[in-house]
Amino acid sequence: MTASACVIGIDFGTDSVRSVVADTADGRVLATSVKHYPRWAKGLYCDPVANQFRQHPLDYLESMEASLREALKEAGAPAAARVRGIAVDTTGSTPVLGDRTGRPLALSPAFAENPNAMFVLWKDHTAVAEAERLNHLARTWGGPDFTKYVGGIYSSEWFWAKAIHVLETDPAVAEAAVTLVEHCDWIPAVLTGTDDLARFKRSRCAAGHKALWHPEFGGYPSDAFLAKLNPKLPALKKSLGTETFTSDTPFGILSAEWAAKLGVPRDTAVAVGAFDAHMGAVGGGISRNRLLKVMGTSTCDIVVAPRGGEPEKLVSGICGQVDGSVIPGMIGYEAGQSAFGDVYAWFKGLLSWPLDTLLPALDGISAEAKQAIAARAADQIIPALEAAAAAVTVEESVPLALDWMNGRRTPDANQRLTGAIAGIRLGTDAPRIYRSLVEATAFGSRAIVERFRAQGIRIDAAIAIGGVAKKSRFVMQTVADVLNMEVTVTAGDQPVALGAAMFAATAAGLYGRIEDAQRAMSSGVETVYRPDPARAQQYDSRYQDYLAFGAFVENALTRSPTTQASKPHS
Amino acid sequence: MTASACVIGIDFGTDSVRSVVADTADGRVLATSVKHYPRWAKGLYCDPVANQFRQHPLDYLESMEASLREALKEAGAPAAARVRGIAVDTTGSTPVLGDRTGRPLALSPAFAENPNAMFVLWKDHTAVAEAERLNHLARTWGGPDFTKYVGGIYSSEWFWAKAIHVLETDPAVAEAAVTLVEHCDWIPAVLTGTDDLARFKRSRCAAGHKALWHPEFGGYPSDAFLAKLNPKLPALKKSLGTETFTSDTPFGILSAEWAAKLGVPRDTAVAVGAFDAHMGAVGGGISRNRLLKVMGTSTCDIVVAPRGGEPEKLVSGICGQVDGSVIPGMIGYEAGQSAFGDVYAWFKGLLSWPLDTLLPALDGISAEAKQAIAARAADQIIPALEAAAAAVTVEESVPLALDWMNGRRTPDANQRLTGAIAGIRLGTDAPRIYRSLVEATAFGSRAIVERFRAQGIRIDAAIAIGGVAKKSRFVMQTVADVLNMEVTVTAGDQPVALGAAMFAATAAGLYGRIEDAQRAMSSGVETVYRPDPARAQQYDSRYQDYLAFGAFVENALTRSPTTQASKPHS
Repeated sequence: MTASACVIGIDFGTDSVRSVVADTADGRVLATSVKHYPRWAKGLYCDPVANQFRQHPLDYLESMEASLREALKEAGAPAAARVRGIAVDTTGSTPVLGDRTGRPLALSPAFAENPNAMFVLWKDHTAVAEAERLNHLARTWGGPDFTKYVGGIYSSEWFWAKAIHVLETDPAVAEAAVTLVEHCDWIPAVLTGTDDLARFKRSRCAAGHKALWHPEFGGYPSDAFLAKLNPKLPALKKSLGTETFTSDTPFGILSAEWAAKLGVPRDTAVAVGAFDAHMGAVGGGISRNRLLKVMGTSTCDIVVAPRGGEPEKLVSGICGQVDGSVIPGMIGYEAGQSAFGDVYAWFKGLLSWPLDTLLPALDGISAEAKQAIAARAADQIIPALEAAAAAVTVEESVPLALDWMNGRRTPDANQRLTGAIAGIRLGTDAPRIYRSLVEATAFGSRAIVERFRAQGIRIDAAIAIGGVAKKSRFVMQTVADVLNMEVTVTAGDQPVALGAAMFAATAAGLYGRIEDAQRAMSSGVETVYRPDPARAQQYDSRYQDYLAFGAFVENALTRSPTTQASKPHS
Repeated sequence: MTASACVIGIDFGTDSVRSVVADTADGRVLATSVKHYPRWAKGLYCDPVANQFRQHPLDYLESMEASLREALKEAGAPAAARVRGIAVDTTGSTPVLGDRTGRPLALSPAFAENPNAMFVLWKDHTAVAEAERLNHLARTWGGPDFTKYVGGIYSSEWFWAKAIHVLETDPAVAEAAVTLVEHCDWIPAVLTGTDDLARFKRSRCAAGHKALWHPEFGGYPSDAFLAKLNPKLPALKKSLGTETFTSDTPFGILSAEWAAKLGVPRDTAVAVGAFDAHMGAVGGGISRNRLLKVMGTSTCDIVVAPRGGEPEKLVSGICGQVDGSVIPGMIGYEAGQSAFGDVYAWFKGLLSWPLDTLLPALDGISAEAKQAIAARAADQIIPALEAAAAAVTVEESVPLALDWMNGRRTPDANQRLTGAIAGIRLGTDAPRIYRSLVEATAFGSRAIVERFRAQGIRIDAAIAIGGVAKKSRFVMQTVADVLNMEVTVTAGDQPVALGAAMFAATAAGLYGRIEDAQRAMSSGVETVYRPDPARAQQYDSRYQDYLAFGAFVENALTRSPTTQASKPHS
């Protein structure tokens, strides 16, 4: 038996990076190593009150090297010697301003401690005003609407808004900046030792979903448009080139330096990077007409569908549609719910209030006992709610909730929206409210599915990955009932890193197409949730109430000055 | 100094009866005694799941005698010898079917254990269908609308609905029944030894607010109307006579038997009875154009206003308007919120869920420690919420709630309505939700005030009695701000029994009018809450949101089958 080739998937998350070494024959994970970002863990360069979240490039470099070394050591030298490809996914949009070699400015001594010279993490919301300027300009400037392929609304979490914000906040950084680099584009450049911007292969996924790149525009938005936002943008745009690449393409070959450091072959291919949700969708088993839900504190909902001819069919109110952002040759659609597990976490936090607030002040109980009570009760709140909520029947008078506690991302992004609970009676207890919140998050998922369908994208079933998908049978069954579709939870603990590994194998030429890698390296199915026909029918009717309630909150309450947030609560 | 005359006020509540001995010169309470109903305390004759709540007449007789004896003993024989009058208030509508002497059927051996022969307590909801029949008939039968003076909606908690329910449930009881007696009419008959139905002086307050009595109808509804509801009703109606009486009138003179039992003079006057809220309004200091709020788990809102000429001006959507039900010579208007303190109690119960559910199962902590934690935490939840909620400013994004967790009593009774909370963000904590609930109950109070004003009843200020008025400065200040009116909390612990004492003094001829007794015997003012002009203005705007939210829930959500209660939760 000939030992098969290996690949490395590197998955940069919000707090840590995970490297996996996988066998390309069957996708078996031979080794995994997770390393946390040391500066980020200390809270450096961030200001949560201002929603400023920055990450130092050294955090990425140091933790990546440590995790690669550890994973390869665990896999063993023979496996390391069989490595043929590496692919990287990151959070996004997480851009940084760079010098003429594409190096983040924070890596030069002058800017080593300057947050504006560091990566602006996806969840950094300092660029709200800049995003609003972009949206306003797109609607009014008289030229093409460059937001048409991102659902019509540009987000403060994205590339150009963040660039404008940093440029206008920090003249020294603006002066030094030559290019703008997404985290997922910089890591392949590092691994391949690429320091010529012309040789950077920018990610189709990142550019298409966050930087308004589209073939119809000949690439990025026109200089005329960008110059109206900030005079420096046309120059930065020029540094990006006009081409973008899918992740089945090699960015280049691993540099001699990194090959030596890691003990892997010098001719190892390094794939073009992409975002975590998109590579995760591939690792999770996405295929045509199946919705892939990455279910955690929020969701990322990915759909792939064949190109529908020219001109490209527009799906309005979703985060974006990009040819090849997930699977080359198909349009990748991205949508999502801005709060999913976070809705349950909010309720858990609410119910923990007496424990958190009153327990510390009670006399006659030792500090240790108090801590034990608080910790154990906190651990058990959600499981106990789940058990009790699952025993409630749909016919019973469960409240009706809206899942917009963190605004709404899709369909039709609106950050001002808020959550709600109606139908409360004196007998409405915590499990019934919890049930209503679970139903609300499922209705939010359904609203996304319905939007896709209304615009002609067929969706037959769902695939779920992420913490919530693994942890809560009750949530998953409710989602299946509300969607009235089979929901399959993918097996395996690291679908995102495995997805990167699949791209690594494809970019290395071990598979002809990513779909072939997907098939061979799939981690299989863990659980299938099938909709209950009776409950599905009841939820059909209840979903209409959800829509009506949502329309009221959006149209009547949200416009009122007294129900709008004057400032965020953190 | 000549010792002044004394009177006795007897206040029958839901769980117990309270007797006070008061000095008529200044209203000073010389003695108080509270006795609980023994059978009721054991849960006899009740079925909470079916909302059946019945009270045995012996509970009333035994506890009243014990409390009168104890109060008079505490007051001392010289005070007892100076007693000149007794007045009684009770809950209502709390009727019972009686024999030809007016005696409750449960006092005869054949029916001694039959709940249908006992008093049907105010909160018994077994007659929902019967109330609906009455309402339907009133709208469709072609004759006068007999519900016009009770706001257009007859309640399942009231006299005729309860009578029909019992008559149609229990043929033996129906066969034996000769009359129907309110609790507040039976006690004066007992104390005066009255066994001739023709000499019963039926309470104007009870008959007008709950039995559809009005001079325009020549008394109670016509035989034609009542016969369509149940063939036995015209005969029962005949037993009531056509007159009703205000509580400044003597029902009669204390019987020799009771005078001897109690050691009070034989010529002691016994006043015509009335309901607790109405006598409480007098004891609390109600006067023209001032809203008297009895604030507890729910509220009873009483207004008195001069007669507006003929025909009597109708206020729609309130519980009732009765000439002399509170102060003889003025129209007494009754409104109320079906949940007030109960809304806060609901939230406390919700927050207690982890403690109640998880604490018992935790290992390593003694049962005593667990009990102590649960008890102390439960005691402190509301005070801690109050303190934290009071520190939140109105400008902050507090959610917007509806206070209809137990339906809506006024304006426009609708039991199907439910509570709601909108404007929830991930940062919305328990104190902010608590604040929204307090605001919602205050908005509910305002809706009542606005309804009165819209119909031409002037309201300049509010007076508050009851547990919530005494306990929560935060709630009371919020009510003052939302109503934009001064809210005065009456001093003294027993305004209701004191109100009865004032009627006793008037019925005994010691004062010419109840207003004179009120002035002389007032317990004074404990606290005055003055509205803050800035907050009042902010709440003006927020109240419009409350109305819009309420209209949506009432018109859109409540009609949907999926958000209606299929059964009550208890």
